[in-house]
Amino acid sequence: MTIDPIYISTKEDSKLIFQYDNFIFDCDGVIWLDETLIPKVLEFLNYLLSNNKNFIFVTNNSSKSRKEYVKKFQRLGINFVTNEMIFPTCYSAVLEVQRLQIPKNSKIWVFGEKGIEEELKLAGYIPVGGTDPKLDAEWNIDLPLMNVDSEVKAVIVGSTKKINYYRIASTLQYLLYNNESLPFIGTNIDKTYPAGKFILPAGGSCVNYMSFTSGREFIDVGKPSKDFLQIILDKTGFNKERTLMVGDTLYTDIKFGNDGKLGVDNKSSLLVLTGGTTLKDLDDAVRHSKDNSIIPSYCIESLTKLIELLE
Amino acid sequence: MTIDPIYISTKEDSKLIFQYDNFIFDCDGVIWLDETLIPKVLEFLNYLLSNNKNFIFVTNNSSKSRKEYVKKFQRLGINFVTNEMIFPTCYSAVLEVQRLQIPKNSKIWVFGEKGIEEELKLAGYIPVGGTDPKLDAEWNIDLPLMNVDSEVKAVIVGSTKKINYYRIASTLQYLLYNNESLPFIGTNIDKTYPAGKFILPAGGSCVNYMSFTSGREFIDVGKPSKDFLQIILDKTGFNKERTLMVGDTLYTDIKFGNDGKLGVDNKSSLLVLTGGTTLKDLDDAVRHSKDNSIIPSYCIESLTKLIELLE
Repeated sequence: MTIDPIYISTKEDSKLIFQYDNFIFDCDGVIWLDETLIPKVLEFLNYLLSNNKNFIFVTNNSSKSRKEYVKKFQRLGINFVTNEMIFPTCYSAVLEVQRLQIPKNSKIWVFGEKGIEEELKLAGYIPVGGTDPKLDAEWNIDLPLMNVDSEVKAVIVGSTKKINYYRIASTLQYLLYNNESLPFIGTNIDKTYPAGKFILPAGGSCVNYMSFTSGREFIDVGKPSKDFLQIILDKTGFNKERTLMVGDTLYTDIKFGNDGKLGVDNKSSLLVLTGGTTLKDLDDAVRHSKDNSIIPSYCIESLTKLIELLE
Repeated sequence: MTIDPIYISTKEDSKLIFQYDNFIFDCDGVIWLDETLIPKVLEFLNYLLSNNKNFIFVTNNSSKSRKEYVKKFQRLGINFVTNEMIFPTCYSAVLEVQRLQIPKNSKIWVFGEKGIEEELKLAGYIPVGGTDPKLDAEWNIDLPLMNVDSEVKAVIVGSTKKINYYRIASTLQYLLYNNESLPFIGTNIDKTYPAGKFILPAGGSCVNYMSFTSGREFIDVGKPSKDFLQIILDKTGFNKERTLMVGDTLYTDIKFGNDGKLGVDNKSSLLVLTGGTTLKDLDDAVRHSKDNSIIPSYCIESLTKLIELLE
């Protein structure tokens, strides 16, 4: 049995949202669209601050480090966000490396962007592969990075638009190496993301590619991983029952809040329609999906609407 | 219940193989390894010819046209192989375009190599995408081939070592176009192939990538597709009961023969160990797989061994 989401459209409704103390926001499609802030998000966050609400940002994007995200928030006019308030999956991947007790100064093979490399370095690890320009070479079988470096202790696969055969083939060597014994960490499961008039392949497509080709499962450190949520709750000290997940994607954001059993009375997630999910998509999911975990507790047009309801 | 394969090791055993009239051979790992002929394959094929046996070659590789395969056989010293004896998946993909009754002179979007383009042209279609050097450009969202050409009537995805974000993203636009109405033909499901000391990503990895990212199923025109086998039987006139499939891969070649119910008494497939499958892999499959369709009827070291048993 699926319970219909509560559609927030009046000031009275909005109180249901503001009853929470802690908010976990997805970024793209919720706070911004690429380099454009969603209207009135600054006012909305300021309202939360002045009402002693807590909030953090959790993104399945692995390409930018927390430091780069702080800069992005500043670029968009939001100056109060610090490293500790941002959890991109390049960071959660490195937390997983630490949880696996891989010693500092170990080499970690990276399929992905600078964000992963920067977070690895910050934690005392040595990234190899990744954005190394050697990996931009046209494919031939005698390329040097095809030979496994036996000092590598784990593999992180994230997203990169520099996907090419050399990166794929060299990463595969690490995933198959030593009877598939190196831990395989994947940053996320997102298939696509909206970018203007296009739907583009997202990081989860790279992770899935390497998983299919190697025949290996990966440790998912992105939403909707329950382990990821637990790490976030531990680091922030958020009381689970007083926390709401806010996102634009059913099978990552909404499932993250629902599976994580945030909130009380099974009310754990708010869908906003400013990203990849339309009201029709939501309606289809409510009617046809057998998976209740992707149905939000609440739905609203946008964070813009939420602050406007208070005016 | 799994039935153990019959391991061919004596002259007496070999008669079990030579009782068939028609042989379907996989190429890579059976006839050759890359550019090297497996020893005594020429003698073996000459033996078949002089004993009035029929044979053809079926490969999941989509990168080379039948014409290119004829040249490859000639390069390796085998001069009696004609176009009609070779079924690569670039050809079966085009047969599928015809079966779908897509009119001649239609444009077909290609993710893959020259083989697909050449076979399309030969059948009167216009390939777009594919090896177009424009698609080698570094990614940005304003690239011209991101805009769907509405004259395209189907999408063929095969393998290419020129995989990059532009090819993936532009192919995705066609797969999502017009409510996902364009037929999506995938050449094969192979994850990897052995290449010297390396295991490398195979074409099925590209097909799976596009299937995952678009959230669409594809029409599989490679082994082990039963439709593909039926096309081959129709074209060659082979009597199914007198035909044996010979290959080196359990989940494509062996399953192709078994699912296709070649031979009599459930004896439809011969595994050779010169490619990607070891005796240990076979043993693991016999012991642990719940899928009988990947267990060969017969197994032999190599085609070399098979001709030597007769000497």
